[in-house]
Amino acid sequence: MAGSSFGNAFKITTWGESHGAALGVVVDGCPAGLKLNEADIQAFLDRRKPGQSKYTTARAEGDEVKILSGVFEGLTTGTPISLIVYNKDHHSSDYSEISTYYRPGHADLTFDLKYGFRDYRGGGRSSGRETIGRVAAGAIASKILKELGISFLTYTLSVGMIKADPKNFDSEYILENPLYMPDRDAAEKAMAYLDDLRKEGSSAGGSVECRINGLPAGIGEPVFDKLDAGLAKAVMSIGAVKAVEIGDGTAVSSSTGYDNNDFFCLKDGKIEKKTNHSGGILGGISDGSEVILRAHFKPTPSISMTQETVNKNGDDININIKGRHDPIIVPRAVVVVESMAALTVIDLLIGNMSSRLDNLRKIYC
Amino acid sequence: MAGSSFGNAFKITTWGESHGAALGVVVDGCPAGLKLNEADIQAFLDRRKPGQSKYTTARAEGDEVKILSGVFEGLTTGTPISLIVYNKDHHSSDYSEISTYYRPGHADLTFDLKYGFRDYRGGGRSSGRETIGRVAAGAIASKILKELGISFLTYTLSVGMIKADPKNFDSEYILENPLYMPDRDAAEKAMAYLDDLRKEGSSAGGSVECRINGLPAGIGEPVFDKLDAGLAKAVMSIGAVKAVEIGDGTAVSSSTGYDNNDFFCLKDGKIEKKTNHSGGILGGISDGSEVILRAHFKPTPSISMTQETVNKNGDDININIKGRHDPIIVPRAVVVVESMAALTVIDLLIGNMSSRLDNLRKIYC
Amino acid sequence: MAGSSFGNAFKITTWGESHGAALGVVVDGCPAGLKLNEADIQAFLDRRKPGQSKYTTARAEGDEVKILSGVFEGLTTGTPISLIVYNKDHHSSDYSEISTYYRPGHADLTFDLKYGFRDYRGGGRSSGRETIGRVAAGAIASKILKELGISFLTYTLSVGMIKADPKNFDSEYILENPLYMPDRDAAEKAMAYLDDLRKEGSSAGGSVECRINGLPAGIGEPVFDKLDAGLAKAVMSIGAVKAVEIGDGTAVSSSTGYDNNDFFCLKDGKIEKKTNHSGGILGGISDGSEVILRAHFKPTPSISMTQETVNKNGDDININIKGRHDPIIVPRAVVVVESMAALTVIDLLIGNMSSRLDNLRKIYC
Amino acid sequence: MAGSSFGNAFKITTWGESHGAALGVVVDGCPAGLKLNEADIQAFLDRRKPGQSKYTTARAEGDEVKILSGVFEGLTTGTPISLIVYNKDHHSSDYSEISTYYRPGHADLTFDLKYGFRDYRGGGRSSGRETIGRVAAGAIASKILKELGISFLTYTLSVGMIKADPKNFDSEYILENPLYMPDRDAAEKAMAYLDDLRKEGSSAGGSVECRINGLPAGIGEPVFDKLDAGLAKAVMSIGAVKAVEIGDGTAVSSSTGYDNNDFFCLKDGKIEKKTNHSGGILGGISDGSEVILRAHFKPTPSISMTQETVNKNGDDININIKGRHDPIIVPRAVVVVESMAALTVIDLLIGNMSSRLDNLRKIYC
Repeated sequence: MAGSSFGNAFKITTWGESHGAALGVVVDGCPAGLKLNEADIQAFLDRRKPGQSKYTTARAEGDEVKILSGVFEGLTTGTPISLIVYNKDHHSSDYSEISTYYRPGHADLTFDLKYGFRDYRGGGRSSGRETIGRVAAGAIASKILKELGISFLTYTLSVGMIKADPKNFDSEYILENPLYMPDRDAAEKAMAYLDDLRKEGSSAGGSVECRINGLPAGIGEPVFDKLDAGLAKAVMSIGAVKAVEIGDGTAVSSSTGYDNNDFFCLKDGKIEKKTNHSGGILGGISDGSEVILRAHFKPTPSISMTQETVNKNGDDININIKGRHDPIIVPRAVVVVESMAALTVIDLLIGNMSSRLDNLRKIYC
Repeated sequence: MAGSSFGNAFKITTWGESHGAALGVVVDGCPAGLKLNEADIQAFLDRRKPGQSKYTTARAEGDEVKILSGVFEGLTTGTPISLIVYNKDHHSSDYSEISTYYRPGHADLTFDLKYGFRDYRGGGRSSGRETIGRVAAGAIASKILKELGISFLTYTLSVGMIKADPKNFDSEYILENPLYMPDRDAAEKAMAYLDDLRKEGSSAGGSVECRINGLPAGIGEPVFDKLDAGLAKAVMSIGAVKAVEIGDGTAVSSSTGYDNNDFFCLKDGKIEKKTNHSGGILGGISDGSEVILRAHFKPTPSISMTQETVNKNGDDININIKGRHDPIIVPRAVVVVESMAALTVIDLLIGNMSSRLDNLRKIYC
Repeated sequence: MAGSSFGNAFKITTWGESHGAALGVVVDGCPAGLKLNEADIQAFLDRRKPGQSKYTTARAEGDEVKILSGVFEGLTTGTPISLIVYNKDHHSSDYSEISTYYRPGHADLTFDLKYGFRDYRGGGRSSGRETIGRVAAGAIASKILKELGISFLTYTLSVGMIKADPKNFDSEYILENPLYMPDRDAAEKAMAYLDDLRKEGSSAGGSVECRINGLPAGIGEPVFDKLDAGLAKAVMSIGAVKAVEIGDGTAVSSSTGYDNNDFFCLKDGKIEKKTNHSGGILGGISDGSEVILRAHFKPTPSISMTQETVNKNGDDININIKGRHDPIIVPRAVVVVESMAALTVIDLLIGNMSSRLDNLRKIYC
Repeated sequence: MAGSSFGNAFKITTWGESHGAALGVVVDGCPAGLKLNEADIQAFLDRRKPGQSKYTTARAEGDEVKILSGVFEGLTTGTPISLIVYNKDHHSSDYSEISTYYRPGHADLTFDLKYGFRDYRGGGRSSGRETIGRVAAGAIASKILKELGISFLTYTLSVGMIKADPKNFDSEYILENPLYMPDRDAAEKAMAYLDDLRKEGSSAGGSVECRINGLPAGIGEPVFDKLDAGLAKAVMSIGAVKAVEIGDGTAVSSSTGYDNNDFFCLKDGKIEKKTNHSGGILGGISDGSEVILRAHFKPTPSISMTQETVNKNGDDININIKGRHDPIIVPRAVVVVESMAALTVIDLLIGNMSSRLDNLRKIYC
């Protein structure tokens, strides 16, 4: 089946392998008339660029984006926008060994079982580099949403056991530290923790939080295409994510109705909620307050510690994976979470345009 | 937009409101040749039937299903299967009061903001009764999967703070207690807890765990249509779910690569994993081991304790919601989670049929 | 695969067999706020009702529609509208004989080859009664389009060799004759022709023309989802249609560029075309002029003349099909063509709402 | 909306403008294990290459295809195949004049009315060059179908009034003449006719016929996703096509039931049809015989004869379009029709894999 597209009205299709000629995305359904240039997209891609600190891999990937179609004289034309990033830094030889065995925590085995063989170079299609297409498309979605007054704040909430403290929350600090954490104390502790793990050849997990502000009420559909359901799929489709939470998330299951319900009140003539346990979504539809979601990432599976596995000859073996790997995926994944959230929101926002007959009249009468 | 369909190759479309004439589902894409009768579907619906204990509402909903199309002489024909459940127990008058204000924790406000008005009778389309269509369709999906050797074990994992202990796990006990818990001690504590909450007019949250056995390796697509992404959307689309976990779930973010990786080994000539932190999914694709997912449900929002809200005249008011409401949603939602998981799996299983050219040859050459 | 849905933003799913319990349709994506009752839909269904004249079958089908969901206090709610028509006039015994052989021109053989068996009662899912769902949904689409100033004029253009003459065109006469022809002379000749065919036990083909007025310019997408491509699929999906034409249709292949191009001119400050060879569509997008399409229907395959075929035992046999059959399908198909055109237009009209960023601003800013 | 994708299980997404940096296509859902290289695709693209004779434009487009992803060590991997063709022969200056007025028969006006402006260079997205992506994808679809024993024979059936005579049918001659006609006499007359038209500065229409052999019975779905409905959309989505016929096509409307029905008979123990008026499709499903379809193309709208139109200032003007244009589109469109037919067939062929429960057992048990 065709599983490389996301979205209906604003649909993206990503393609490309880690060590192929290039990676890219086609964005179909972008409205005409948006100012767009390569720098808009590059700014997003740079947030996921590796080699920026010792916590991310040292590969000089570059990842320079080109717009191949869909933009004319600086404006989107309404036709598909094709974006491409050429792969530059090929060391396929690094990967010749891993073609012979199955790395724990990777998709090596499942690709072989599904397709009969796999492009083993750098993980092929299952590589984190696939997210280049998501982020490039996310940059466009975010730019449209910004025009409509909708903004995103996304950051590393935790690294291992170390969690940002809401009391120390500093949104400006997020871009000032390589871990994209919003709490200086937590970030420093996390860096020390990662140093230790790197020395022993292991890696850490962590979580990302994304907050969406300015989203109008009414976005999301009542049944299967709920806003939270869409966000859950979008974020769970990022490799290494194993849990998605909305609002209070897992904590709701140990709460009570009285404590968990957000009471309504009037504020300046507008109906608001006194609390936001629901994370801005009621019945799958945005309620006009801040939307909050969290994603939990597993630790980087590529570690240099000795691991047990099986090779293609059917032998139980011990392996030590070589090569340059992030001791944590999370900082580079922050922009991926934000991009997937933006893609979900723009798609449902367009979908909601026909929710009322009056909206059709506004456009056509 | 049209948001009441789920699935691509095996597609269901649900319809109906809590207090309308009927609710139902159309199942399109069911393969021909499956033995199917109304009792197969009724058995699933009975698992979500209210009025079975004091922990679920006392309404005598009945919920008797009729097959209107797609089955001929006891076999599915390959054409759409239309299933209907007539609504019987109308007390619309119970709901006249709630038409005037917004219930905290419900979709009353968001429906009004989205559509301009709402069918306020029993929550209309946002009612839990919408899941009748999901469960009826899930019964069909489950029957096909069973024919292929794929089975589900689903239960209430926790009620409030009270969690089933793996040491006490008793799968036969699940159907013997009204909470569908797999641990007798936990179930008894949970029932006491719910009695207390019911007395004070509040309600409890809880979590559901679903385990899928016998699923072949290779199910799920590499990028957006990962098995875990599909499950996340499916389960998060159930009203009241606020978090979805796969395998170790949220715990992965505080784990390390060495501890979280599942090592491979050979067992009777087959590659297996020594542990199952990943919950049976690697790179979005099933690995042949048990698939494990969990859903966290918020407490029933309809509580009789006094709550603050706003009415349609724009007044801040206090309300006490009357009527018959479950002090916990979770037990009735167990079969809904299982149904959504089955619908996700059957759709990806069919989608995977064309993963290899050899499979096309098996069918057509 | 699931092939019983049509449309993306305004999606319909039909279900039901000729001799099952009922037939119906779920309309998902209808905007909220449309006044709708059963009479609106019944009026459309009555246009395809059999038994109205000797040129259509004598079965008293009734075909009374019920709205089961999606309408509250006379207005569409934005949630799925479920429509049902119960089957009343069952003579399944009439069909016991045809279960043993394959009727020429019918889908008996192809259903058996596809699914392994078939519901042979009255053609099952391949019966013309399947169009009940299309027409019921088309009534809703048409009502929305009417609110936006878009109207349809559809009629029988030809019966066998007898074609309505544009010089005699009388739109009021269409509803005054059982063949729905717009030309009294042609209609009378056609009726005489049909009488002759009926006597010899054969049947006639014919064509339907549909004209759409008031459609705004800009509807349809540049590449695969062109307005004409959508109409072609919609109309070719009606059983018995073997050709679809837009504007001058097949005649364009023998025309020249100079003769076929429609020159532009200014009229009251608006750009218009001097001719309309293109049938209102340029590059797949409506140009603001009248949209014109034609469908060619094959003769009713059920005829009483002796035919050669094969039975299930593998014998070559001669058959004489009994039962009540229309000597021509076309008059009853007029409303089906109109319905499919309306469903195509509403879907692309909603799809076009996001063609410009300014339209998003009109709704959300 | 996103209208640049075609197909569900085997989905293609085309992108690119006539005078942008490049054009391309992403093919998602191609089964793993197909031998594929650039020469396979180039062979198809060369069939639509211009500059091959005086009947096609003299531009040296080159159109050299590159595979950017989805193929590893000569085999498709099951992941998206990205194909790109760089644009080389830019004479954007040729088009500066046409930016100021609306060419009759082109999409200039409708793009402006839909999007507010247009990429006017060479027609932008509405250019015939968009079909590069369709043909490149069609080459892959055709290669899979060939592996399954399904083949295509496609040719120019008529040019203007000059039609190939079945009596002179010579399938080998098709590739020996620049018009791809299967009849030497007709081809020679057609060339003389085109010479005359070229001298007077006009152009000709024509028709293409496509025959599909070896298609198994059972392909196509009963209701909306009929094989003929899919083919109709596929072919009508090609720019300049104004009519699509299946089997006897428009002729069926003047036939009778007795003459039009194809009688069944036994031949070597297999059920066959004595005639093939139906064009290999009954009830929307392939019956195992040859599938036949025809597309009618309008004459090239770009002609050098003086035409009337309107410019952007709102003046009625006369124009003479300069530049290199085909006096007929049809010969280059032959491979486009074949490609769209192949894409339709592969998608429905995959869709049919789950038509029977037994097929699931063949793959999974």
